[in-house]
Amino acid sequence: MNGPAFQDFYPENVAHCHGCGRLNEQGLKIRTFWEGEESVTRFRPWPEHTAIPGFVYGGLLASLVDCHSTGTAAAAMYRQEGRPMDSLPVFRFVTASLRVDYLAPTPIDAELEIRGRVKEIRGRKVVVVATVSAFGKITARGEVVAAQMPEAFNVRP
Amino acid sequence: MNGPAFQDFYPENVAHCHGCGRLNEQGLKIRTFWEGEESVTRFRPWPEHTAIPGFVYGGLLASLVDCHSTGTAAAAMYRQEGRPMDSLPVFRFVTASLRVDYLAPTPIDAELEIRGRVKEIRGRKVVVVATVSAFGKITARGEVVAAQMPEAFNVRP
Repeated sequence: MNGPAFQDFYPENVAHCHGCGRLNEQGLKIRTFWEGEESVTRFRPWPEHTAIPGFVYGGLLASLVDCHSTGTAAAAMYRQEGRPMDSLPVFRFVTASLRVDYLAPTPIDAELEIRGRVKEIRGRKVVVVATVSAFGKITARGEVVAAQMPEAFNVRP
Repeated sequence: MNGPAFQDFYPENVAHCHGCGRLNEQGLKIRTFWEGEESVTRFRPWPEHTAIPGFVYGGLLASLVDCHSTGTAAAAMYRQEGRPMDSLPVFRFVTASLRVDYLAPTPIDAELEIRGRVKEIRGRKVVVVATVSAFGKITARGEVVAAQMPEAFNVRP
């Protein structure tokens, strides 16, 4: 996809996450975008992301849902405030809870599509629901409660 | 720890999982053991498993809880039947659902300890609850519904 992703706006000192940090050389480096009211991440699993040969590891799907949702939470907060993602103060979220229901085996040779939607914003928490699809079929559903990073993490632009 | 781990008994064709497959060269290769009524996995995060610098990525913790629990589910079924893990038929589980509550940031310089307990066995499903601890403090709690692999996966010894 063109243009900057949500994750391109993460301040450098919080851009090392294994799932979504653009500065984590060994990480997944997922990239998430708005498509209307939904957020979308597309990701092609690596060969090592095997569960049973031919199928994707559930821990990868949990990771994708996780980082997709914390990114969506941040983007939703900027949108709610009507300001761009490079404006201050910075919104950056961590995961308070994560739930994934695995509905069907996910083929590993697919480009996976994770689609998210904001279910609720309450104070410093954002609830995001997400689906994982392969070849147009939903194989997993997730829900994440994302919480704004504690001040102790010292998020700075 | 000494002796074989639960994962050492997984048949070769289902031993490639990114989290727990002893044959996945790039994987986490977790190893799980009984300690009385509890199952225990100890794992030292890799540098790339960063969330915020200094802390462990939640997706890794979800992966550890996931594979720890499917392993515990298999071991519990053998134990329930009073037979060793190298006997037939093979028990191997996949994840039906996964929930993780992140209670506190998990330091990345710790050896993590995941402790599991069987909450319930019902038919082909086993519910496992788990904690993740670092330096003796619980930082996350998980619950996994593990289901025996569908016959389509062709688990064979």
